[in-house]
Amino acid sequence: MNILTIIEKKKNKQELTKEEIEYVVNGFLKEEIKDYQMSSFLMAVVLNGMTIEETFYLTDVMLKSGDVLDLSSLKDKVVDKHSTGGVGDKTTLIVAPLVASLGVNVVKMSGRGLGHTGGTIDKLEAISGFKTSISKNQMLDQVKKIGVCIASGSASLVPADKKIYALRDVTGTTSSIPLIASSIMSKKIALGANDIVIDLKVGNGALMKDIKDAKLLAHYMIEIGKRYQKNVVCVLTDMNEPLGKAIGNGLEVKESIGVLKNHGDEKLKKLVLTLAGHMVEKGLGISFDEAYQKCQTNLENQKAYQKFEELVKWQGGNIDDICISSNVISLKSPSTGFVNKIDALKLGNLAKILGAGRIKEDDNIDYGVGFVLNKKVGDYVLEGEELVKIYTGKTDLLLEDVVSCFSITNNGVEKESIIIDVIG
Amino acid sequence: MNILTIIEKKKNKQELTKEEIEYVVNGFLKEEIKDYQMSSFLMAVVLNGMTIEETFYLTDVMLKSGDVLDLSSLKDKVVDKHSTGGVGDKTTLIVAPLVASLGVNVVKMSGRGLGHTGGTIDKLEAISGFKTSISKNQMLDQVKKIGVCIASGSASLVPADKKIYALRDVTGTTSSIPLIASSIMSKKIALGANDIVIDLKVGNGALMKDIKDAKLLAHYMIEIGKRYQKNVVCVLTDMNEPLGKAIGNGLEVKESIGVLKNHGDEKLKKLVLTLAGHMVEKGLGISFDEAYQKCQTNLENQKAYQKFEELVKWQGGNIDDICISSNVISLKSPSTGFVNKIDALKLGNLAKILGAGRIKEDDNIDYGVGFVLNKKVGDYVLEGEELVKIYTGKTDLLLEDVVSCFSITNNGVEKESIIIDVIG
Repeated sequence: MNILTIIEKKKNKQELTKEEIEYVVNGFLKEEIKDYQMSSFLMAVVLNGMTIEETFYLTDVMLKSGDVLDLSSLKDKVVDKHSTGGVGDKTTLIVAPLVASLGVNVVKMSGRGLGHTGGTIDKLEAISGFKTSISKNQMLDQVKKIGVCIASGSASLVPADKKIYALRDVTGTTSSIPLIASSIMSKKIALGANDIVIDLKVGNGALMKDIKDAKLLAHYMIEIGKRYQKNVVCVLTDMNEPLGKAIGNGLEVKESIGVLKNHGDEKLKKLVLTLAGHMVEKGLGISFDEAYQKCQTNLENQKAYQKFEELVKWQGGNIDDICISSNVISLKSPSTGFVNKIDALKLGNLAKILGAGRIKEDDNIDYGVGFVLNKKVGDYVLEGEELVKIYTGKTDLLLEDVVSCFSITNNGVEKESIIIDVIG
Repeated sequence: MNILTIIEKKKNKQELTKEEIEYVVNGFLKEEIKDYQMSSFLMAVVLNGMTIEETFYLTDVMLKSGDVLDLSSLKDKVVDKHSTGGVGDKTTLIVAPLVASLGVNVVKMSGRGLGHTGGTIDKLEAISGFKTSISKNQMLDQVKKIGVCIASGSASLVPADKKIYALRDVTGTTSSIPLIASSIMSKKIALGANDIVIDLKVGNGALMKDIKDAKLLAHYMIEIGKRYQKNVVCVLTDMNEPLGKAIGNGLEVKESIGVLKNHGDEKLKKLVLTLAGHMVEKGLGISFDEAYQKCQTNLENQKAYQKFEELVKWQGGNIDDICISSNVISLKSPSTGFVNKIDALKLGNLAKILGAGRIKEDDNIDYGVGFVLNKKVGDYVLEGEELVKIYTGKTDLLLEDVVSCFSITNNGVEKESIIIDVIG
């Protein structure tokens, strides 16, 4: 076998065999296939696609490149949740304890990585003392005791995905349905859960810009899941404005606690209940409506919040000490009208510049900084009324840049539903 | 500007600006753009194409990456000739002196590079003493005196093309009309000739597999030529069997001398006369028919051969000492019938294995080895009659591999015309 012949095949829109896909991935891991050859191959995949069968082979060889978590010692089902990522996405912080409070196990491993804010792990580390680096045995023990654990990802899980993703990130080859599907699914399968609920973001601020592509991605992931006897549910959700009101690590923990106490942004709560509802439906084998109702109840009766307290305590955190900057700027609206659009991506990038996220992998995060939106799309705002609070000690932030993320018009706009569709 | 944004644009089939193309090429030359980013970009170009305007910008920035030969001190027009490469292609050895014998200047710079046999330069070096490494001043001086010079390419001409081509070669990104057009044209423009005749090979053994693609490539090169006020003529020629009878450096020199003395393979002679005819047409400003007739005459009256003798002498070679292996195997036909097909590519690769070409760039060439075909497509052959002579001292060559290049059937086949079309 030869990498040039395989590139040529994909260039000519031919289907690759299992052996050819294994040859590419394993050769790249062993550095026999060079990064410049791999990136040429990846671009051919981006432009000419892969069948579900090819995508399954790719998932499988990546999965087999590392360890797989063995959850068989747990007596109850484990349900996993994944988000394709969005600005202000703190759903894991809420969904994991909520689902666990209903007796369904949740074992989450999250990355740090790059992003507008940190990953789930970084958000939790905004809680003083919270430990995320936990051994596999400790994880399993904690799940047996309290039904939930959130830990930082292990380098030994799916190393092929890490190496390929790092290359995709710098070669313009991220936006590809088979590459995204295999990257997500190899990691989810390696984590060993029985069922997987995926929050698939759609919109300007997301990897999937339109619903048609998002549905196709959902189809790929569901089909790959079947090959491992895993149920996959994809919830397509709107990502045209930031999720909830807070952007920034400590600020998002605080917002999450609000929702766990049954307060907070309605759209965010709706999303959390939908994701948790599908997880509980699978985990307990009951109807979605019943599961949704149970989740609602556990927000109201504070059981979800108590589970979160328990989780924080078990992992060494002090829930009364969350890092939030004491320097706050209240940014006022320059005009009167309806908030017509909020540029989620731009606001996310500004949060990163404030220090909420990493630009390089070894950057330190400033847990206390970020934004809290006072107005969201569809809201009416008066000139001089607060649009957003900015948490930062920086004095060189251009306030105009923040204001320009908001488009204010005379005409009212419909508030879009956060849930677009549920597939699987 | 940012390489990822530019890759994204090409991935989405958008047209790139002059500035973006300059950014990519210059960034790659300065190694600010990494090879793995460049190969991803190149694959996007292979699959999504480039307009003629983009291809011109690409040509121009590559051209400007190095020196340009200044031929303005020559009083007569200079006509250049290029071949897209084929097995047994020795046309330059014949065409250059033939055209010069009619008073049209020919300044050829050829590469060594990789191939089934060596390049033109390697072929000439099969003549004992022949020097191909000549300074620019010496070249111009020689052209002023005898109207022809064939020298090895200078590293200072179009370095961007060299660097990009080396990457394309190992990343499956060679077969692209805009990339081929810009690579050829940047080198031809850098050599400074007034008019350019391109021998564009079409067929199984060539880069262009079908006539439609070859015509499109011709169109691109002609249009780019216009932007530099250069006339470009593309002669589309059949490359489904080796060109002429000899494959191998010394053997091809010998065959070329035969044609220069008006002997030899009719198809090869027809091709040489057509290419030379168009060069002389442009160079002397006469009709093609008249030019073709003059070329024919100069083969018959030996003036072309005398010019070749003069060229060899000027460049230090001894025409009576051409390296040809004395170990000859006569390979017989295993059956009786018509030669239906000869696999040019496979035969070329076998010649390379014998040592006629390079596998790695620093390989040494064995000038004396190769093949001389006794039968070509359409010929009738008896069982036990000679198919091909193999010139080699190697004893481990598998004769079955050579035999398998010939397909012999009961049905006669039409001898195809070597000239498919002339465009421009």
